[in-house]
Amino acid sequence: MIKVGIIGFGYWGPNIARNFQENSGLELVGIAELDENRRAIAKQKYPNVHIYEDATSLFKETSIDAVAIITPVSTHFELAKNALISGMHVLLEKPMTSSVAEAEGLINLAEQKNLTLMVDHTFIYTPAVRKIKEVLDKKGLGELYYFDSVRINFGLFQQDVNVVWDLAPHDISIMQYILNSQKVKSVSAQGVSHTPSQLENIAYVTVKFENDFLAHFHVNWLAPMKIRRILIGGNEKMLIFDDGQPSEKIKIYDKGITVSKNNRETLYKTLIQYRIGDVHIPNISNTEALKIETNHFVECINTGNRSDSDGESGLYVVKILELASRSLKSGGKVISAD
Amino acid sequence: MIKVGIIGFGYWGPNIARNFQENSGLELVGIAELDENRRAIAKQKYPNVHIYEDATSLFKETSIDAVAIITPVSTHFELAKNALISGMHVLLEKPMTSSVAEAEGLINLAEQKNLTLMVDHTFIYTPAVRKIKEVLDKKGLGELYYFDSVRINFGLFQQDVNVVWDLAPHDISIMQYILNSQKVKSVSAQGVSHTPSQLENIAYVTVKFENDFLAHFHVNWLAPMKIRRILIGGNEKMLIFDDGQPSEKIKIYDKGITVSKNNRETLYKTLIQYRIGDVHIPNISNTEALKIETNHFVECINTGNRSDSDGESGLYVVKILELASRSLKSGGKVISAD
Amino acid sequence: MIKVGIIGFGYWGPNIARNFQENSGLELVGIAELDENRRAIAKQKYPNVHIYEDATSLFKETSIDAVAIITPVSTHFELAKNALISGMHVLLEKPMTSSVAEAEGLINLAEQKNLTLMVDHTFIYTPAVRKIKEVLDKKGLGELYYFDSVRINFGLFQQDVNVVWDLAPHDISIMQYILNSQKVKSVSAQGVSHTPSQLENIAYVTVKFENDFLAHFHVNWLAPMKIRRILIGGNEKMLIFDDGQPSEKIKIYDKGITVSKNNRETLYKTLIQYRIGDVHIPNISNTEALKIETNHFVECINTGNRSDSDGESGLYVVKILELASRSLKSGGKVISAD
Amino acid sequence: MIKVGIIGFGYWGPNIARNFQENSGLELVGIAELDENRRAIAKQKYPNVHIYEDATSLFKETSIDAVAIITPVSTHFELAKNALISGMHVLLEKPMTSSVAEAEGLINLAEQKNLTLMVDHTFIYTPAVRKIKEVLDKKGLGELYYFDSVRINFGLFQQDVNVVWDLAPHDISIMQYILNSQKVKSVSAQGVSHTPSQLENIAYVTVKFENDFLAHFHVNWLAPMKIRRILIGGNEKMLIFDDGQPSEKIKIYDKGITVSKNNRETLYKTLIQYRIGDVHIPNISNTEALKIETNHFVECINTGNRSDSDGESGLYVVKILELASRSLKSGGKVISAD
Repeated sequence: MIKVGIIGFGYWGPNIARNFQENSGLELVGIAELDENRRAIAKQKYPNVHIYEDATSLFKETSIDAVAIITPVSTHFELAKNALISGMHVLLEKPMTSSVAEAEGLINLAEQKNLTLMVDHTFIYTPAVRKIKEVLDKKGLGELYYFDSVRINFGLFQQDVNVVWDLAPHDISIMQYILNSQKVKSVSAQGVSHTPSQLENIAYVTVKFENDFLAHFHVNWLAPMKIRRILIGGNEKMLIFDDGQPSEKIKIYDKGITVSKNNRETLYKTLIQYRIGDVHIPNISNTEALKIETNHFVECINTGNRSDSDGESGLYVVKILELASRSLKSGGKVISAD
Repeated sequence: MIKVGIIGFGYWGPNIARNFQENSGLELVGIAELDENRRAIAKQKYPNVHIYEDATSLFKETSIDAVAIITPVSTHFELAKNALISGMHVLLEKPMTSSVAEAEGLINLAEQKNLTLMVDHTFIYTPAVRKIKEVLDKKGLGELYYFDSVRINFGLFQQDVNVVWDLAPHDISIMQYILNSQKVKSVSAQGVSHTPSQLENIAYVTVKFENDFLAHFHVNWLAPMKIRRILIGGNEKMLIFDDGQPSEKIKIYDKGITVSKNNRETLYKTLIQYRIGDVHIPNISNTEALKIETNHFVECINTGNRSDSDGESGLYVVKILELASRSLKSGGKVISAD
Repeated sequence: MIKVGIIGFGYWGPNIARNFQENSGLELVGIAELDENRRAIAKQKYPNVHIYEDATSLFKETSIDAVAIITPVSTHFELAKNALISGMHVLLEKPMTSSVAEAEGLINLAEQKNLTLMVDHTFIYTPAVRKIKEVLDKKGLGELYYFDSVRINFGLFQQDVNVVWDLAPHDISIMQYILNSQKVKSVSAQGVSHTPSQLENIAYVTVKFENDFLAHFHVNWLAPMKIRRILIGGNEKMLIFDDGQPSEKIKIYDKGITVSKNNRETLYKTLIQYRIGDVHIPNISNTEALKIETNHFVECINTGNRSDSDGESGLYVVKILELASRSLKSGGKVISAD
Repeated sequence: MIKVGIIGFGYWGPNIARNFQENSGLELVGIAELDENRRAIAKQKYPNVHIYEDATSLFKETSIDAVAIITPVSTHFELAKNALISGMHVLLEKPMTSSVAEAEGLINLAEQKNLTLMVDHTFIYTPAVRKIKEVLDKKGLGELYYFDSVRINFGLFQQDVNVVWDLAPHDISIMQYILNSQKVKSVSAQGVSHTPSQLENIAYVTVKFENDFLAHFHVNWLAPMKIRRILIGGNEKMLIFDDGQPSEKIKIYDKGITVSKNNRETLYKTLIQYRIGDVHIPNISNTEALKIETNHFVECINTGNRSDSDGESGLYVVKILELASRSLKSGGKVISAD
């Protein structure tokens, strides 16, 4: 059984802890947390787990095989580096790091140490996103045209990162996963901050790819209601993933256009024909994403297999975030990915 | 009674005709239409109205006081110019013209001739948009933060203009109206075409203003379902205008943030407090927008008053469209409005 | 071409007139209407159609082959009787008559005269209901368990009939059509009136069938919002028909239960297993129901075929309404259909 | 601090246990559970709580002040009686008992023993239902006309009670609470069973009151989707409580009718005028109902105050259920409440 620790017992850490605790392949042995009150809560919930006052002490515990690092992004690189140096497999909260350079550093280190480095892209472990990938891998929508994501809500302004770094990683990681890390051509972003922090709380990010594929992300902490919806358009079908629905989250529309040319009229203009068929709502299992992800983490550690959310996929997301940040700072310039 | 003619009896013209016919201040006397089949339909519907084979013949009819021009945008300038020269008041389909220069030309000509020049920004005559303006004029949302519009559907690819020129005028004219033509700082747009026409069928347009106010428009002819929704965020309240709903189109959320500073914690970080109150759904009349607009057209002609959708507001919309086009052509560059 | 007249040009009559006018198999030659203002409107809309001051004059017009009777239910029997006696085919507004006896009288008379007698059960001509029948005819839901209908809205209190006679005919006729006039065992109804008219404005009607099939109808003129929704449950699948949706009106759920018995546990209790599969939303054409119905009326007259909404189906609906009325008067007693 | 025990650690018991554990006025000291596996789970979650193999042993523990009984309804009477005899305050799962006689027995016993007897009508402790009562207590809807409830879903067929006893107690207890136990005139019910258990899995219950107030309950275990919605109509306003919504659960419609009489037309017919105003969505707190209920239980024990869901309210619900059962057995007869 893999002995596992957790660094950071704030908002998300308890969910990781619960899933680690319930996983038969893992033994949760340590939790490191800087805040005294949070440590008390961890202590009460997990009386048999060792509670550390900081990560350094936990890293010294040589019996620990793996750690989940669930801390603010600015600390990810140092903590993950030290974990890897201590010989521990790492599950790292998203976004992976604050910069591409840091992400590359961790990837190299993990490779060198032959350790599993996995990023906590939770959404790609939801049954819904797995189903979408299944559909797309079978070319179920035909050739892809666009990816349009809206993730807006009211509240939870972050103190250390802007809304792009906070919310967009969810959708970018979904896109990375279902599009198999398709190569990005350019990124642009526009946003605005309404607080003295100067951190943007509303932003729009456009990602361009070869082949006229276009992705767009709307993220907003200051919207009156919660929307979490992704549209994916293909030349044969189109798909909606509405994560705000309690059920029927995915709808696949058998709709498309046919551009006709063997027609007298097309001497002058293109003839477009519209095809409208049925809608299909696949049944989706209710399994908790973190449970699937935890099983996958255990399996990767045990087999040495690459994770579906490995360092490279974490790097992919960070690269887009970094380009978006540069664009935001420049007032919206289109930044080439090369 | 004002004698009125209509140029163009295609998709939208019949609605104008019906409203003109039912208006007690107007007498519909002529319809000009190039297509023979459409002329036949006009003839059957309005046996007592003179049907012309082209606009030129209609313009020669000196007894006609006013015309509605409901034709493709590329013809707007010439037709409106000739109508004004013929001494006729003009109701001009949106977008007003293909270029800023043309719009300015028409404004000058109308002023010179002392004729009413009104643009058919139908949406600003809907009871819903009128209600929104009423709320905003009373500072009902506080200081405005953003305007976010989504207008997407499946079908009706235009042959002569891209999706920005086809769909965005609706939302830009709404924004122009409710924000009283607030001065634009810059425009950027990204889009993609999936047909040989090279006309973009999906696009995102960002408009920046002074004071960190941000507007964004998502337009798409290739979406699986119809969405017509505008979010307007203020520092005190937020508003949703969901035009896809059969009723309850406007929801006003009493939600906002307070950025606190007189607090020890703010030595290090900003303290944001969230306020969540009730939601208010104002009752909206069912009056047809075109009926209100037609009454307004008659009133402007009779009184010489400026229209709520006068040439200047048409120009405002065209200016943003023109900047968006330049940005699209440049691959998404931010184009300054000055 | 069949020469056709219309009796009653109130709320629904104009829709019939428009469809008759547009149908190539019909020639609309006469409209009879008691109200002077309504006659003026008919005159303006159909300048070439003869407008009669009452039905009697129209019935004397021997050149008229068929009439649509779109008047209050209390007048149906007399008008339809006279039309048939005058040798005219009849399309009769729903509900067919005020009583079973009257309905039977008309059926006999039409048979005797060898004339088409069709009831205007418009809903059974909607593409959605046709699709539902298609699914059920193929046993697409398995064995049927229940039919649950809700048709509620705000307004349009009738002066001459209660809410059951006003709204329930829609849903009962749908049920009659898709269940092929399955034999009714009993009817009960409870309702209440909140106006001096003593006409119930809210009511619940239960219809029992052999084989434990149960139907229930909730009708209400005093509900805050409009709901028009039918659930049909089968042992294999279940279906929702939500007519309040602009699209995606029909959803077919691949859900069901299996009652297992070859199991040790069932010595003590029944073991129920739940099956949850995909949801299917069939594409539905947008054709107007009245257009389909009008074509069907023409075809029935020309061929002598029985209509899908013939006198028998009208009688079926009236019988349930009559039983419901008796139950309402008795305070909710279960009234046997025999 | 009140020492409290729990009898029954099945589906709902763990929620009670968590809330008892987190309540500062209670000390959870014992859990009795017949099933060995469930006992093991209780043991693991609450290592410091004594786990009993049956209720009898727990009742012998004289240091226990109060118990929650969360077991099948058939056991409620015996268990609650023994708890009261043992001098313990009782929180009893809904429905209170299997019969009116049992409910009355418990009420008398609790009174005699001067102990708190509270029924777990959880819904009346939700912030939404509290808000509705607040509105109704202020006559916010005017005079009440009807209460219409739909609680349908797919699954969870009970083995010991039918769908009326399983689902309707939620809605009947809500009605009892917000209508202050208004006196019932009669009850009728119709339903059908599709399993060998002969327990109805779909049913409709109508409850009549004086003053033409009408209540109706639709409960169904075999519906394709989940609906939990209550409509309450008044002569001034109407209210929807849609518990299936994640937010905006309550909407208050400023809609109503005015029956006019001082009008010439009313010599012949009633003139009804429709009033349509705004919709108001009150903000509702997110506090967990069980937390509010637990606090209330503690307070009732400490002060001796009557609970909002005291024995009388439990009896009220059971009485309607008992009448509904009699009606179901009779095939739908209207059963007088006297």
